[in-house]
Parts: sequence; structure tokens; C-alpha cells
Amino acid sequence: MTELSQKNSYDLIIIGGGPAGLTAGIYTARGKLSSLLIERGLIGGLITETELVENFPGFPQGVSGFELGELMHRQAQKYGLPILVAEVTGLKLKGKQKIVETTEGNFSARAVIIASGAERIKLNIPGEEKFSGRGVSYCATCDGALFKDRPVAVAGGGDVGLTEALHLAKFARRVTVIELMPQLGASRILQDRAAAEAKIEFLLNTRIEAIEGEDMVKRLKLLQVKTGRKSTLETSAIFVAIGVKPYTSFLKNILPLDASGAILTNDKLETSIPGIFAVGDVRASSAQQAIVAAGDGATAAIYAEKFLTE
Amino acid sequence: MTELSQKNSYDLIIIGGGPAGLTAGIYTARGKLSSLLIERGLIGGLITETELVENFPGFPQGVSGFELGELMHRQAQKYGLPILVAEVTGLKLKGKQKIVETTEGNFSARAVIIASGAERIKLNIPGEEKFSGRGVSYCATCDGALFKDRPVAVAGGGDVGLTEALHLAKFARRVTVIELMPQLGASRILQDRAAAEAKIEFLLNTRIEAIEGEDMVKRLKLLQVKTGRKSTLETSAIFVAIGVKPYTSFLKNILPLDASGAILTNDKLETSIPGIFAVGDVRASSAQQAIVAAGDGATAAIYAEKFLTE
Repeated sequence: MTELSQKNSYDLIIIGGGPAGLTAGIYTARGKLSSLLIERGLIGGLITETELVENFPGFPQGVSGFELGELMHRQAQKYGLPILVAEVTGLKLKGKQKIVETTEGNFSARAVIIASGAERIKLNIPGEEKFSGRGVSYCATCDGALFKDRPVAVAGGGDVGLTEALHLAKFARRVTVIELMPQLGASRILQDRAAAEAKIEFLLNTRIEAIEGEDMVKRLKLLQVKTGRKSTLETSAIFVAIGVKPYTSFLKNILPLDASGAILTNDKLETSIPGIFAVGDVRASSAQQAIVAAGDGATAAIYAEKFLTE
Repeated sequence: MTELSQKNSYDLIIIGGGPAGLTAGIYTARGKLSSLLIERGLIGGLITETELVENFPGFPQGVSGFELGELMHRQAQKYGLPILVAEVTGLKLKGKQKIVETTEGNFSARAVIIASGAERIKLNIPGEEKFSGRGVSYCATCDGALFKDRPVAVAGGGDVGLTEALHLAKFARRVTVIELMPQLGASRILQDRAAAEAKIEFLLNTRIEAIEGEDMVKRLKLLQVKTGRKSTLETSAIFVAIGVKPYTSFLKNILPLDASGAILTNDKLETSIPGIFAVGDVRASSAQQAIVAAGDGATAAIYAEKFLTE
């Protein structure tokens, strides 16, 4: 990475090294565009935490998230994509140039692809981290099929929580939706559909205090917040569905965001500022899947090259 | 496929079995949604014609298009996706039901994902089919890197042709843009950029009459249409960039299309009709890449499931 210390200006900078950013980088590096990818942590992004990815097309036997991240990383390296490990702290405009401020100095480019991802909001309770990927999940679409005929639980009774619960009801023996508030926050129609599904049951006014198990999740420790009664729920999995937080704090409001804090784009993944694109989990309406993020990366790389050419 | 003869109603029907349709099918079948995929020809779609796909993330060594199609097909089969080989001839609305008319009968569903793809418009000249994938290409982003330091040609002097030429100039020794009309059709700014690139030369009023070679493309037979003079151009590749024609004739104008005939969608890939989605090469603004199509398929499958749940 000595090259980096000599150069701080590129045609294009990619912020984030998950499937979205790496795919953008595979396209830009293979296309001989002068580009730099900046990642603050592990190359490969959030998908590397998933034990078995079954729905990334091209891998009928499934692939570990870690391996998938590695494969994409190698593919980007093969075409010579420079990668800088640094945290992006700001993004500023200077005429047509975009200045990307990082903990390793400032870099400028005429085009920027934001692929900074999103964080699944966590319960922050004992056992959550320990059993992550072993019964604790943040995505029913990804992991629901692994719990066929087993009892599962969902944390959160909003639209996302009930959508997850309805999806899980197709596989699981029983789905327990756990909500801290006195009522569900989901839309009426989702509540009606969930109530009509015999497998789904609800625990309101209930806080999950701990996740316990051995190799895998076995039970949840619950507190009924109105009565103070403690109880235990046997379950094989807990799907945490209390929201997603896109990583956009470094933007300091230079781009329009949706209610969840995700970046708004059009169907070419252009943001409101010419030359700035948003891809993957950080963009509004993203389906929060690795394959979607990868597709986004390719789209933005191609439209960014057009932007730079015109 | 005996199952199919007994059932003509599904929650969701996918039209087209390329990367977009197969990925949608992997998601819907794995998610236990009652779904049917209809493909008229080869499962795998247009990508199966590409000899080596280098930019599908997850395959650092590259993968043949045929194998990539096969892998996705097997993945969809693994989750039990029913596939019908038939041509779709019409799509009609009947209340909330969508009726998909095919050469094998009619099928109904509440949601439809259109993944019917697009056809690269061909020159229809001798040698074009024979050398397809062996010097004849319809995508500089895909195949340009294979012709480093070689002379290449581009058929078409519109925006797409000059964008392809500028991309190719990064690899090739010489790029000859061949245009039938007396002037280039591209925008002024692209013309200026191409004119400033020393490697790019132009042949106007010129028709390509034949593509010749042995194992690979070696030369083009040209006709100067004003003077009637015939000539030969030595080249390692010819990139055909005279347009793309989305497969939408079966729609018979029930959905808004863009100028090229592609289906307009929003960022959730919803069309103007609730429950109908468009993905991959057939949707407007698609970057015409397998990875983008695959990402689209996942997005539409997830939003279609939400549509069916709500």
C-alpha cells in the first residue's frame, strides 16, 4: 500500500468494503478507472459475519459469508484496486471535486460511491453477541429456513417484526413476537394477518433480559415490565427486528435521507449531488441483501464512469 | 414437471429464467412462496453465451457464462422452484389477479416479476453469429479487458458506441468507430472526448458487410456507401453497439416504457401496476449486467413477498 502515500487524488473513491463497495471496485479497477476503496474495518463487510449464505446466486451449496467476502476481495485485488484502511470522517464539496476526509488524511475525487453499509440495531443484552449466527439473527429471509419445525422468537412488534414473523411462520413450529410496549407498532393489516396465523403468539410489555444456551440458543430470559414477573421462553432462535441504522454520520446532512437515515437515490443510484452515488444497505429502499448490494455496486460503477466521461 | 399440469394458480409468477429470474426464484422458493418460473428457451439467459465472466463478484478466477447459469439453475432447483418451458404471449389483469398467457396455457398469480431480458440488436451480417464470443461482443465493460494492446472496432457512433469506444481506448491499441450515417449520432461532449483520444479513429458512411477470421475475428469487410469503395479492416474484435431491444412485446402496452422500450420502475422495482415488478435487462436504467440483474431479482422477490403479505 505504499502507492497510497504518494497519491491523494483519484477519479473515483468508494467508501466501504462490503459486497457493494467491492463489486463497485471490481468494475472500476477492471475498467482501469483511477479509483480507491476506503474501509475502516474488515474487508468484506457485514456478510462476513453470516455462517452460511444460501441465497447468493452462483453458490448452490451455499458459501460462508467470510469466504464470500474473501472471494470478492481477491477479485478486486486481481484487477489492482487500491484499498486503504481508514475511517471516513467527512465528505465535503469543493467545486466539482469531492473531498473525502479520513483518519489517514484527505483524498479527492470527482465521483464518490458511498457503500458504507448499515448496522442492525442490537438489543445489547447478555448472550446476544455470543450467540450471533448461532440462533441470534437479524434477517429472517436469510436464516429462517434453518429453523424448520423449531420454536423461534422475534424481538420487535413493528412492521419489520411482523413481516419477519409471517415469513418465519412458513418454517417454524411456533413464532413468539416479543414487544416491549403495551401494543404492537405494526400497521393494522399486518397485525390482522399475524393474528390470523395460528403459529404466531404475542408477548406485550415484555423485555428480553438475556439470551442463553450452550452451542446454540436455547432460551430467553424475559421480564414482564408491568407486573415485574420474570419468565423463561424456550426457543431455538431469536430474530432481532428493532431496526437498521445506516452509517451516514460522516455525511453531516449534505445529502437527503429517508426516515431511517438511509440515502435517497434514483434508479441509477444517483444521489441529489451529481457524481455522488449510494449503494447497498446505506441506500433507501435497499432490500438489505448481499446480492442486491453487489448489483448496486456494479450499477453505480457503470453510471459513475459515464458521469466521468461526459 | 407433472406438478405443473395440475396447478395453474400461484402467489407469484416469474417471467424469464436468466440471472434476474433465477435469483428471484431462489428467493421465492427458499421463502416457501408458491411461485412458478416460465422460460421459453435456455435456462440461464443471455449470460450463458458469454465465454468468460470476469466481473460477477465471488468468482475471482472468472466463470463461464454457461456454468454461472447452471449454478443458479441448480440453486433454484434445490429449493424446489417449478420451472415451465413455454413462451409468454400475453399479460392481462383480472381484478387483483394477473393472468400470464403462454403457449402452454394460462396461469394466474397475484404478483408477477417480469425478468424477460433484452436482445442486443445485431448487425445480421455473415460471421456475426459464428464469431460471437470469439471477437464479436455486445459489451465493452464485459469483454474489453480481453483485448489489451490489440486493435478493436466499434459498430455504432451513437452515445453507446462512443462510450464503449472511450472505455476500450483504455485497453486497446487502436479503436475504430464505424458509423453508417454521414455523421456520429452521439452527444457533442462525447464526440469531443472521443476526438481528443488519439487511439480512436472514425469511419463514417461505412457499412460492415462481413466479419471474417479463423478461430477468432481477424478482419472486417467494409463498404463506403457514398463512393462504393470496398476495403478490409484488420481487427481482433468488433463491439456491436447499435442498441438493445427489451423483450416486452407480450405486454401489449399495459405498462409505461421508456424510449428504448424498457419497463419503468421505482427504486423498489415496482411498475405502475401494484404487484407487477420488472427486473434485469428489461427494466429502464438497467446497467445490463448479470450481477445487477441478480440483485434486481432479490429486491423484487422481497418486495413482492411484502406486497403479498400486506
